[in-house]
Amino acid sequence: MSGAEAPRRPTIYDVAAAAGVSKSLVSLVLRGSPSVSEARRAAVLDAMARLDYRPSQAAAALAGARTRTIGVVLDDFRNLWFVGLLRGLQEGLSAHGFRIAVADGTLNAHVEASPLDGFLSMRVDGLVIATEPTPAMRVPAGLPVVVAGSRRGEVPGADVVANDDRLGGRLATDHLLELGHRRIGHLTGDGGAAQLRAEGFRESLLAAGLRAPVVRGEGSTTEEDGYRAALRLLGEAPGTTALFAANDTMAMGALAAARERGLRVPEDLSVIGYDDSPIAATHLLRLTTVDGRNAEVGAAAAERLVARTATEPSEPVRTALLTPRLVPRSSCAGPRDG
Amino acid sequence: MSGAEAPRRPTIYDVAAAAGVSKSLVSLVLRGSPSVSEARRAAVLDAMARLDYRPSQAAAALAGARTRTIGVVLDDFRNLWFVGLLRGLQEGLSAHGFRIAVADGTLNAHVEASPLDGFLSMRVDGLVIATEPTPAMRVPAGLPVVVAGSRRGEVPGADVVANDDRLGGRLATDHLLELGHRRIGHLTGDGGAAQLRAEGFRESLLAAGLRAPVVRGEGSTTEEDGYRAALRLLGEAPGTTALFAANDTMAMGALAAARERGLRVPEDLSVIGYDDSPIAATHLLRLTTVDGRNAEVGAAAAERLVARTATEPSEPVRTALLTPRLVPRSSCAGPRDG
Repeated sequence: MSGAEAPRRPTIYDVAAAAGVSKSLVSLVLRGSPSVSEARRAAVLDAMARLDYRPSQAAAALAGARTRTIGVVLDDFRNLWFVGLLRGLQEGLSAHGFRIAVADGTLNAHVEASPLDGFLSMRVDGLVIATEPTPAMRVPAGLPVVVAGSRRGEVPGADVVANDDRLGGRLATDHLLELGHRRIGHLTGDGGAAQLRAEGFRESLLAAGLRAPVVRGEGSTTEEDGYRAALRLLGEAPGTTALFAANDTMAMGALAAARERGLRVPEDLSVIGYDDSPIAATHLLRLTTVDGRNAEVGAAAAERLVARTATEPSEPVRTALLTPRLVPRSSCAGPRDG
Repeated sequence: MSGAEAPRRPTIYDVAAAAGVSKSLVSLVLRGSPSVSEARRAAVLDAMARLDYRPSQAAAALAGARTRTIGVVLDDFRNLWFVGLLRGLQEGLSAHGFRIAVADGTLNAHVEASPLDGFLSMRVDGLVIATEPTPAMRVPAGLPVVVAGSRRGEVPGADVVANDDRLGGRLATDHLLELGHRRIGHLTGDGGAAQLRAEGFRESLLAAGLRAPVVRGEGSTTEEDGYRAALRLLGEAPGTTALFAANDTMAMGALAAARERGLRVPEDLSVIGYDDSPIAATHLLRLTTVDGRNAEVGAAAAERLVARTATEPSEPVRTALLTPRLVPRSSCAGPRDG
């Protein structure tokens, strides 16, 4: 408090005084609490900017000892694309003494506005968002956050480590085109990843000079959705010789639809999925698919998180896109009349 | 400290004094820390017993504010039996304002001796153990813990809410017997749940007066294990007309093995699984299976946890076994020569 003291970093008290609010309210803003009004949040963020306040250290001090745990928010446990991501995260994080805890966004939806809130109260050292980001996902200043897997919605302040879904959509479609298919349908659904894959599909078909393809989306991307969408698509376009499904789970449903219509795979109908999930690799499916390299995405996300915990939060956010690759198995072949 | 004060409950300080250790060490014992020697742990537990110390309140006070989160430890994310369990837990817990965080025991194995340690440092309000318990799983006194899904190894101090796997094994086998099958094989693997199901299988066959059946276990219970075990079993006992797999994931591998040997399901070979997982219900598999009623198991486990958080930890532990039920779909029929 003496005028003779050395220049020092601003504290949370300085921010509170400059913003005309209490220290507790600054703390709430730091934690990303949804209970703070937008006006007061803006005042606090403005004070932080004016004072060049570095929230990471104060946030850590406020939260007390950290847990060396990274929280991972997934979309749906039934869609197994995340298994590789978790393996990559675990391998990358365990070398630095971090562990992983997982939450299914849908599962906790009744309890809290954002599935992030639970992890924040559990004092995680960082977050991985591997689901569709929502506006309710407020990230506290200074907490390392990575959006991983697909480049979907934006989360301000979060790094992105993803596979290039649009390119993957092109890879899948080009594979079918190279096999000689010209009547190709696409099964898609809601969500940013599915939309990017559908864009890649359209790009490849346009580049091949083919007319607008049949694209079927019925909502979500479950096996049931894939089954229903494939039945409708094959009914509306019976000459279709190949299907590209937005993920392996939908492709599984497409295989069931093909069987129900008496179509052999791959002799009468080729089916390609996306994700290279454990289901695709089973002996039963042997599904040709696109590998989003989720283990490598997880490892890279782990690296970003570890780097973030050691650096200033003011470092600009980065987006890293990994190149997906085709995994040919037994569910695709040339068309019979091709 | 005055001799005139009213009788009061013993505190952590009383326990520390009686055991001749520090308060911090009592706290470590309460948290189940593995860093305490067995001798000192025994001295603390002995002092607690002599003083009739009730650790739950003190443990809660020590840990400070709780997180209203229940930690769930799973065995393997690829085996989807747990999806119903999580749904039941979520529905039961959210009504009381609790959320769920999940860890895969295998995934965090490199980071800590026990996957419980992570959740403990995250100050969970309770634990669900839905994996094979290990001796490293030390449960802190006063923390509500439920072993859920299958009655596998013992966790001292934990309640058990499970499906009756032995009875389920009988249900599956009796279904095949009632369809007329007499040459039935079983695909099994490591783990307490698989062992109980195999016991049920043997009991039913013995009760039917059939000789010792072919049972194949190759280690774990993945799709790959089911595929390999089924191929070997069908090679060694080519007259087999029905297979009971220890879970739906192994059954999926058995379906692939049947196809590879040119056997139609169910015309040439009936296949029954266990768990009624999302995979069994797919249009592609339509797998006859045994429903362990995991959503109800989850709801009952949630009820036990909520009750435990409101009662004294001295209440004796309980075991509740739910009766599984058969789910007939399209993968079983009578034998062709039956």
